[in-house]
Amino acid sequence: MQAESGVPIRIALAQINGWVGGFKANAERVKLACSQARKIGADVVLFPELTLTGYPPEDLLHKKNFIQDCQATLKKIAPHTRGLTAVIGFAEQKGKYLYNSAALICDGKHIGTSQKILLPNYGVFDEKRYFTEGDKPVRFSFKGLQVGVTICEDIWEESGPGKTLCKNIDLLLNISSSPYQQGKGKARRQMVIKRARSYGTPIAYVNRVGGQDELVFDGQSLIVGADGKIIVQGNSFAEELIVADLILHPKSQKSKSGLKNIRSYRVPAMGSKNKKNIPPHCYREKTMQEEVYSALVLGTRDYIHKNGFSKVVLGLSGGIDSSITAVIAVDALGADNVVGVLMPSPHSSQGSIDDALALAKNLNIKTFTFPIASAMQAYDGILEDAFKGTDVGLAEENLQARIRGNLLMALSNKMGWMVLTTGNKSEISMGYCTLYGDMAGGFAVIKDVPKMLVYELSHWVNREQEIIPQNVLIKDPSAELRPDQRDTDSLPPYDLLDPVLLRYIEEDMSVEEIKVSGLSKSEIQRIVCLVDLNEYKRRQGPPGVKITPKAFGKDRRLPITQGRK
Amino acid sequence: MQAESGVPIRIALAQINGWVGGFKANAERVKLACSQARKIGADVVLFPELTLTGYPPEDLLHKKNFIQDCQATLKKIAPHTRGLTAVIGFAEQKGKYLYNSAALICDGKHIGTSQKILLPNYGVFDEKRYFTEGDKPVRFSFKGLQVGVTICEDIWEESGPGKTLCKNIDLLLNISSSPYQQGKGKARRQMVIKRARSYGTPIAYVNRVGGQDELVFDGQSLIVGADGKIIVQGNSFAEELIVADLILHPKSQKSKSGLKNIRSYRVPAMGSKNKKNIPPHCYREKTMQEEVYSALVLGTRDYIHKNGFSKVVLGLSGGIDSSITAVIAVDALGADNVVGVLMPSPHSSQGSIDDALALAKNLNIKTFTFPIASAMQAYDGILEDAFKGTDVGLAEENLQARIRGNLLMALSNKMGWMVLTTGNKSEISMGYCTLYGDMAGGFAVIKDVPKMLVYELSHWVNREQEIIPQNVLIKDPSAELRPDQRDTDSLPPYDLLDPVLLRYIEEDMSVEEIKVSGLSKSEIQRIVCLVDLNEYKRRQGPPGVKITPKAFGKDRRLPITQGRK
Repeated sequence: MQAESGVPIRIALAQINGWVGGFKANAERVKLACSQARKIGADVVLFPELTLTGYPPEDLLHKKNFIQDCQATLKKIAPHTRGLTAVIGFAEQKGKYLYNSAALICDGKHIGTSQKILLPNYGVFDEKRYFTEGDKPVRFSFKGLQVGVTICEDIWEESGPGKTLCKNIDLLLNISSSPYQQGKGKARRQMVIKRARSYGTPIAYVNRVGGQDELVFDGQSLIVGADGKIIVQGNSFAEELIVADLILHPKSQKSKSGLKNIRSYRVPAMGSKNKKNIPPHCYREKTMQEEVYSALVLGTRDYIHKNGFSKVVLGLSGGIDSSITAVIAVDALGADNVVGVLMPSPHSSQGSIDDALALAKNLNIKTFTFPIASAMQAYDGILEDAFKGTDVGLAEENLQARIRGNLLMALSNKMGWMVLTTGNKSEISMGYCTLYGDMAGGFAVIKDVPKMLVYELSHWVNREQEIIPQNVLIKDPSAELRPDQRDTDSLPPYDLLDPVLLRYIEEDMSVEEIKVSGLSKSEIQRIVCLVDLNEYKRRQGPPGVKITPKAFGKDRRLPITQGRK
Repeated sequence: MQAESGVPIRIALAQINGWVGGFKANAERVKLACSQARKIGADVVLFPELTLTGYPPEDLLHKKNFIQDCQATLKKIAPHTRGLTAVIGFAEQKGKYLYNSAALICDGKHIGTSQKILLPNYGVFDEKRYFTEGDKPVRFSFKGLQVGVTICEDIWEESGPGKTLCKNIDLLLNISSSPYQQGKGKARRQMVIKRARSYGTPIAYVNRVGGQDELVFDGQSLIVGADGKIIVQGNSFAEELIVADLILHPKSQKSKSGLKNIRSYRVPAMGSKNKKNIPPHCYREKTMQEEVYSALVLGTRDYIHKNGFSKVVLGLSGGIDSSITAVIAVDALGADNVVGVLMPSPHSSQGSIDDALALAKNLNIKTFTFPIASAMQAYDGILEDAFKGTDVGLAEENLQARIRGNLLMALSNKMGWMVLTTGNKSEISMGYCTLYGDMAGGFAVIKDVPKMLVYELSHWVNREQEIIPQNVLIKDPSAELRPDQRDTDSLPPYDLLDPVLLRYIEEDMSVEEIKVSGLSKSEIQRIVCLVDLNEYKRRQGPPGVKITPKAFGKDRRLPITQGRK
């Protein structure tokens, strides 16, 4: 048999969740994964890019002691790799230059280092702010095989460093911290398959999981054969130790790589000592809705927990945005850790109150009800003279939203619960939201989710049973800040608005280029103007999970002051 | 005479204020300066880096139509340079690459282009996000002289592109957009002097003026002889057309450059048609206090005006922060355009109310007085059940600040006035401020001014007459959110705190490295922890003028979530 003549190698991908700047926690995670990899007889274990610092460490990299701590942590954990070849990401200071590096640690000894060559400096990435480009990737030999190590971006370009490297190696390793956006897992998989085929080399690719401020990492690590066939792939949004046995034939022998078996192992559960007792890996492809929903759940959970909170509070208006936010929060934190607050004004409909209470009942979460009329009257009294002779309008509407924001923040300050805001991407784009009102809070769960996708996610949530009350899904959206208000009084219908926003925000198209049937040029112009004009509001909003190709935040850096508006 | 044998050249530096994305407005400014330069017989006129797009254009550069508009604007204004050689900054698309370029336009014809080679990607700069590095700077000949053109960063490095270029040229031009921080003018001047000397070449350096979001540009353009002597320099924070006559001797003749006379001309005022009638230039060096104060005034004025506002409103607490903010606002916008609001609570002292009214009287600004007790009672009533059995504390204190924030925002929404916030850098560093309370507003005038510098600026303001009431300068700082509260209940004295903050925030020193006599290691540790912990608050604060080497904002990009806190 051909396979028998090859070299067997058992590879483990440590698809772990880490902490930015949490050297101790990250080191513990590495030790645990090494210990499990050893137990199951792995030869090589890969950890995500910048394993030790977390990703992205941002300007922490400018602190000398941060880099020192990183390098000290690498030394401390090296002995824990005994019996393994481990690839661990770290920030490497060499003279006055800093590199985004992968340490190759063999049986406790640091035997080589690969430095990242292609440094992404677009979208959410600022790597040229910190790092110097590496020279060439390191490789090592394993039982006569040549193995090369690259870092993330290095294999995203077909003509990148992997190309030359693969002429002389039998296996390409890549350690990544590649953040999620809708469909990214598929794009990444296709890229790895394409590279493996065109380089004629099997690729083992590890990606991190977990939330970090506005980013969430989805994992979906994978190993692909030189023929482009997927050998094993990790699930999305879960910590896993993904294991595969490969039989590799050195290129020098001009024979093909083979595959023996596929195995997987979950990191969080402590493993069996019997190395044969590895459960078969089970990869499950998620639908688009489930994928986005999972990203929101993990991003929210990690933001809350990693910032030292356990409970959250949010306003329940009876609308779809606060409903889906509450559902996500319950999935992320548990029903006991989510508190809903109803804050009816004289403009609130009984239907909205009923819908909010029905949702809370379905989710089994605690609620408070705070009618706000007395606070509205107090402000009216204070402002009476100053506002004399003016028409009731935006100022009074915003006051209602701000009273609600204050009440949620008061609960937050008193109880130690983080406030979740409930605005969606469509309204945040248009500034259809109140600064210090409904925008007040610590985390904006659906800030990157366009309204039409909010509907899709809500239907998906209700796929088996009614969690979000049916009435919430069918009624016209309204902020209920004045009698008989409807979103469509101020905005185009969301099924027309969302395509315009996508083209303008995510694709940087001009008014001339955007064509959406049902909207005139001047309506499109008005939308674009409102997006520009409301940059100042977004700048003061809380962070939230990026799920689209371009999220507000560091992904899209526009001036507040600009002459074009 | 040696000078008579040289080549006379009259150079004009158009130290102008521009608009990010305001192609029409920028083109008008260029036309005006060209027309004035022509009237006074200038040969060469220099405009700041990225003249046409404004600086920094940020992600507007990702919009195809933005780049097209920029290039179309360049074509349109070219004819207006007739009779002159103009150097105009623009964003240049060549195939798939974008360059930060300087167009050399001679008598209406675009005869050459220099591309920026060194692209800053640190601090507030993100140029590698947008631009490709240029190849080599362009040069042109003028009456037998060789003149080279470089862009900003290109001359900040001694061994940069200017070095080789200067071996073969007689005059080096540099167009810049170099933002202000304390002492930057002096540092820039010293750099230009050093380069001129070491390159053995006179340098004409133009910088922009004006505010753009968190940045303010200070101008201080200058021309330096090959001997390092300053020939002329522009004032700080003012639009000027700075003119000098040079007599240059081509290097090929191996003789020295000479200086004929020095002249200056203000852009905003239309000039005389008699080219001999140029007023002699008068450069005045500002003290540190005046310089910082001028930066705050211009940064504030431009933010307000360029965003379409004319009036502002701010809370007057009778404290030093709101006092200096009001003074700056009056200088920036005029007393008629500044409204002060007193919002006393039962914890406010009569002294504070008197101080606030005295300040308003000195500044001749209108005031409102809104006692907030009734709103406090309304919230207490609404929250009574939820808060039963808890101690009065932070939640109640923050509510007072948020009621005030709401009242200011209600005035803003009703009247169309922008709210100015009044927090200083020391308290924003420590999180000694209330989100959606005193942090609520459109622009944070002194957000980058440490408290001790607030005192210095206030004394400077009072140098000739008492504008800020004396009592404000001498009383203990207090937020007055509970009886007998003092800042020192929560914070170390500011004269000890500020040096720690400077070392930690601006110099990235570790707790171990920071030594400030009067503070123990654990007190320093606590300060550092609070700075880290309060990143989430700062992320939701309004923009304000950068005046230190490292301001909160895009200058300092730290994660909210980090394992070290």
